[in-house]
Amino acid sequence: MIGAPHSIALTNVEIDDEFWSPWMERNRDVTIEYQYEQLEDSRTLENFYRAANGKEGGFQGMWFQDSDAYKWLEAASYELAKREDPDLRDRVNEVIDLIADAQEESGYLNTYFQLVEPDGKWTNLHMLHELYCAGHLIEAAVAHHEATGESSLLDVATAFADHIDDVFEDEIDGVPGHEEIELALIKLYRVTGEKRYLDLAEYFINLRGYDDRLAWELEHLDEIAGGEFDSDDWKGSIHEGSRTVFLDDEGEYDGSYAQAHAPVREQSTTEGHSVRAMYLYAAVTELVAERGDDDLKAALDRLWANMTEKRMYITGGIGPEHEHEGFTEDYDLPNESAYAETCAAIGSIFWNQRMFELTEEAKYADLMERTLYNGFLAGIGLDGKHFFYVNPLASAGGHHRKGWFTCACCPPNAARLFASLGQYCYSTSGGELYVNQYVGGTLATSVHGVDVDVNQTSALPWDGDVTLEIDADDVIPVNLRIPEWCTEATVAVNGEEVDHDGSRYIRLDREWDGETIELDLAMEPELVAAHPAVESDAGRVAVERGPLVYCAEEVDNDRPLHQYAVCTDGDVNAAHREDLLGGVTVLEADADVPTLDEWEGLLYLPDDETRTESTTLTLVPYHSWDNRDPGAMQVWMRAG
Amino acid sequence: MIGAPHSIALTNVEIDDEFWSPWMERNRDVTIEYQYEQLEDSRTLENFYRAANGKEGGFQGMWFQDSDAYKWLEAASYELAKREDPDLRDRVNEVIDLIADAQEESGYLNTYFQLVEPDGKWTNLHMLHELYCAGHLIEAAVAHHEATGESSLLDVATAFADHIDDVFEDEIDGVPGHEEIELALIKLYRVTGEKRYLDLAEYFINLRGYDDRLAWELEHLDEIAGGEFDSDDWKGSIHEGSRTVFLDDEGEYDGSYAQAHAPVREQSTTEGHSVRAMYLYAAVTELVAERGDDDLKAALDRLWANMTEKRMYITGGIGPEHEHEGFTEDYDLPNESAYAETCAAIGSIFWNQRMFELTEEAKYADLMERTLYNGFLAGIGLDGKHFFYVNPLASAGGHHRKGWFTCACCPPNAARLFASLGQYCYSTSGGELYVNQYVGGTLATSVHGVDVDVNQTSALPWDGDVTLEIDADDVIPVNLRIPEWCTEATVAVNGEEVDHDGSRYIRLDREWDGETIELDLAMEPELVAAHPAVESDAGRVAVERGPLVYCAEEVDNDRPLHQYAVCTDGDVNAAHREDLLGGVTVLEADADVPTLDEWEGLLYLPDDETRTESTTLTLVPYHSWDNRDPGAMQVWMRAG
Repeated sequence: MIGAPHSIALTNVEIDDEFWSPWMERNRDVTIEYQYEQLEDSRTLENFYRAANGKEGGFQGMWFQDSDAYKWLEAASYELAKREDPDLRDRVNEVIDLIADAQEESGYLNTYFQLVEPDGKWTNLHMLHELYCAGHLIEAAVAHHEATGESSLLDVATAFADHIDDVFEDEIDGVPGHEEIELALIKLYRVTGEKRYLDLAEYFINLRGYDDRLAWELEHLDEIAGGEFDSDDWKGSIHEGSRTVFLDDEGEYDGSYAQAHAPVREQSTTEGHSVRAMYLYAAVTELVAERGDDDLKAALDRLWANMTEKRMYITGGIGPEHEHEGFTEDYDLPNESAYAETCAAIGSIFWNQRMFELTEEAKYADLMERTLYNGFLAGIGLDGKHFFYVNPLASAGGHHRKGWFTCACCPPNAARLFASLGQYCYSTSGGELYVNQYVGGTLATSVHGVDVDVNQTSALPWDGDVTLEIDADDVIPVNLRIPEWCTEATVAVNGEEVDHDGSRYIRLDREWDGETIELDLAMEPELVAAHPAVESDAGRVAVERGPLVYCAEEVDNDRPLHQYAVCTDGDVNAAHREDLLGGVTVLEADADVPTLDEWEGLLYLPDDETRTESTTLTLVPYHSWDNRDPGAMQVWMRAG
Repeated sequence: MIGAPHSIALTNVEIDDEFWSPWMERNRDVTIEYQYEQLEDSRTLENFYRAANGKEGGFQGMWFQDSDAYKWLEAASYELAKREDPDLRDRVNEVIDLIADAQEESGYLNTYFQLVEPDGKWTNLHMLHELYCAGHLIEAAVAHHEATGESSLLDVATAFADHIDDVFEDEIDGVPGHEEIELALIKLYRVTGEKRYLDLAEYFINLRGYDDRLAWELEHLDEIAGGEFDSDDWKGSIHEGSRTVFLDDEGEYDGSYAQAHAPVREQSTTEGHSVRAMYLYAAVTELVAERGDDDLKAALDRLWANMTEKRMYITGGIGPEHEHEGFTEDYDLPNESAYAETCAAIGSIFWNQRMFELTEEAKYADLMERTLYNGFLAGIGLDGKHFFYVNPLASAGGHHRKGWFTCACCPPNAARLFASLGQYCYSTSGGELYVNQYVGGTLATSVHGVDVDVNQTSALPWDGDVTLEIDADDVIPVNLRIPEWCTEATVAVNGEEVDHDGSRYIRLDREWDGETIELDLAMEPELVAAHPAVESDAGRVAVERGPLVYCAEEVDNDRPLHQYAVCTDGDVNAAHREDLLGGVTVLEADADVPTLDEWEGLLYLPDDETRTESTTLTLVPYHSWDNRDPGAMQVWMRAG
């Protein structure tokens, strides 16, 4: 594998971490099982069965429902890569058989079109997600092949990919409305060595923004919908959706929803549906890694800067707007109405992993850490079967986790990230070992032919003590990331402190014969302000400690949350509470609240007649909110 | 007239005031003329013409469109009361003729029903506003009669009132969904001396909350709509509206929208549509004045306390919620999404005038002043023909005055208040003279048989200098209100300072022979806080000076408004600017804004690395906003 998005194979990492292991076990034992039940309950599997048996009609669910099965297969495959599980393996094989049976002779496979619009294939690229589903099929197939060595699903994927390549070479000049296939095709290229898949990914990426197929599709909606275009019916409404999301207020073509408003290499601002954007940028990053392209790389740098400097929540969440699930304008980061879809946070982790592999810059690993512990993790309930699709940074008390969603993209996406988390902790990019995420467990890999074994223990996110035991055949540089939040880092090898220059990585280039590295990453509570242009956060602070963003929940505090003003010159004390939320470190911040006596019978009062009194505000990790009594929540507290 | 809502006749007052006269002249010369044009353009007059000529169908506008004509007649009559205007008088007579011609033999008069649902009269009391329109007809008729001595319109009104009395005595047991007729009937009783009108008002007031007709109407909507109930058509949708506004989320009867959730004498919180509430409370206040009723008075006191202590904007605006144009919960006073309908502010003035007449307590006159200068006046543009229906206390820049509204209740309501403003300045309640509003001009009235002449000059709202010259036949107590905002008041009679005890009224009980009273009401800018339970105002202050609430507009300030924090220990300087907004006193408040240098390329920063710099925030009177370049506005500024 050349320049793979993960230079570490999942089979090389075993996670055994106080913080992450319980999440991953719940993911395996609860979420993936629950997800499988949902495939049955939602009739996602039945769609394949019906298609396999040549039926028409009777399709159930969203038009991209097939992707739920593929995402489950991907997550289940990651579990199979990590340990034997005959029952899971059997179920995976059954689902693969069902999918293989549903595939048409030509290689085509999409149960929505096979059952509902058999004559409508490839007619509504922008809305109807054929290529998106194909991408998830390919990702699942690659995961399954890498986990098991089998090619049952890979054969399905390559047959479909070949068919797509033929169709798009000969007949169609267009790009998918929802990116996904691009990064999948590059994975497929790496597994198969078939350059045509890389070329096809490059074709989709480079055509984006030049594509004039959209205008055609928008003009021919009626024809596309089989002459039955009626926005009141379900089928009509998805076609109508095509019009809604791609036209601006003046009814003009506006491809920004799907990042098709300009050629990728000319883009400078993150636009449109944020999950789509992340999947596109991830693919572009891999294309740059494969083919090199300074213009594309420069575009990625601009897009990353725009996102992280102007369009990202402190949790790593992105895409503030509900209606188009996406980006809006610089500094538009409302808290209560934030969208910040869980899938978008996951997509950001995918992209940043690839940016790191391309550049070996710490800032990408920093952002992965921020997003993992906050914007992503908030999406999954402590029971493993309640989820947030939408992740606001404030709630008046009405926002709660749900069991499943009609558009069930987030839970399966979370499942595949949890299941493959090992791949996000280390990197051998550039021929050196990078320890990017301090997650306990073992690594056994090879760096430029040198076998390396790592045994890590980590107290993150509650404390900054990390220990690494390393063995290697030969000299190999080990790079330890000093997280952005760390106020002071000390490193000792076999008890002997090592000088370091304050770089973002401490680089230890030496022989390894079971040496123990002790890393002490100082972790202090910190009040953080947002750029003055962010209206929602004006006069407010967020509280962070280590990699965690904190929030105040109604259940922990006597007064309504808006009455607290966190003292910017006060103390914030940390205390670990094993009894709470499965064990979390709680913060108690000095705060002021208004006294109430002087208000008896009054609604307004001269400001100089009002008083405040001292109290403390209790804060819990943002990712743990809404796991207890429902109530209000705030990340950004008034500063006093 | 006994216990009249206005103990001063409009003909007794002539306003000549630097501040108010230009508004009243614009009202007369622009708004009332414009309003007449709208009666023609909206085909409101044509509806009467069609009804007069026995036509069916062709009705134009809202189902309560007739009331626009009545409100215009009322405003125009007030103008006729103040001065000769043959052209206006002719037009008034023409409109009256049209209305009289449209009246049915029985006395019935409502062009919506006559043209659209001739068989549906009195079938949908809760939604279809027949009694509301009747109330406005009666108010117009009383105004016209008092202004001109003529009975042309009064005859129409009494014929309709008699018909209503007959119908409701014999056939119907129900109350109107939109209160208005109650206060109108009491006016009609006072002008005619006919006790049956007072009885009918009392019947409507006392039946409210006991009324079981609503349930019947809701069950028979289909029948009521003539068997053609289809919520997609216009007629169906008004009937459907009946269901929407009277049923709660569980589909249960909930009369709170129209204050019918409980008998009035049991009510304690202001509920539902706020204009309706104000009209009801105004009528109840008059009923108490006429008949005495301790329970009803106690209810009024509770309702007033609830409104002013928990449910009122600092501008005097009421009813925060858009969907039902009304009250919600205690302390729910959002700024940007505030509804605070102009008509509700006007209704509050109507109610408070009556509460004053009943009690002679200064607090009601205080609230009238607050509402007049802020919540009401903001509703009318400086050109006299652009209006706010909705009066938010903050805007991101998208809220602007409009020329007219489909539901055109506010502009005509404002016109009738401006035209009759003289009646709100003085009172002879309780046999003493009260000077409640410091508005320049003359008063010639009689108090307990003693003729009194007053000549007032006033520098309000820009300065607190007021002069009153008084002549009277005999000894008469004159009460001068010390406004709630006044930090120090001095009074001199003929240059000689008078001691006073800090009461809300300075009472001068003496002979008057052209004595000059000089009143100096100290007026300092003041920062005001809201009750801690008001979430939207937490950590914020509003700036007031004298009777005026101020606001910051984007056009006057360099930075986005959210970046300013008003220094609570800083200065606020006042300066009068004749060149601005027709001449206003502008405030410059010391404020801090964030420095920007340290933010280059950053979105989040440790709070202790941020800095602020001193500046000033420019504020203009709230009522004058959105009369220049469109932009953001805020009343409640962050406090620093």
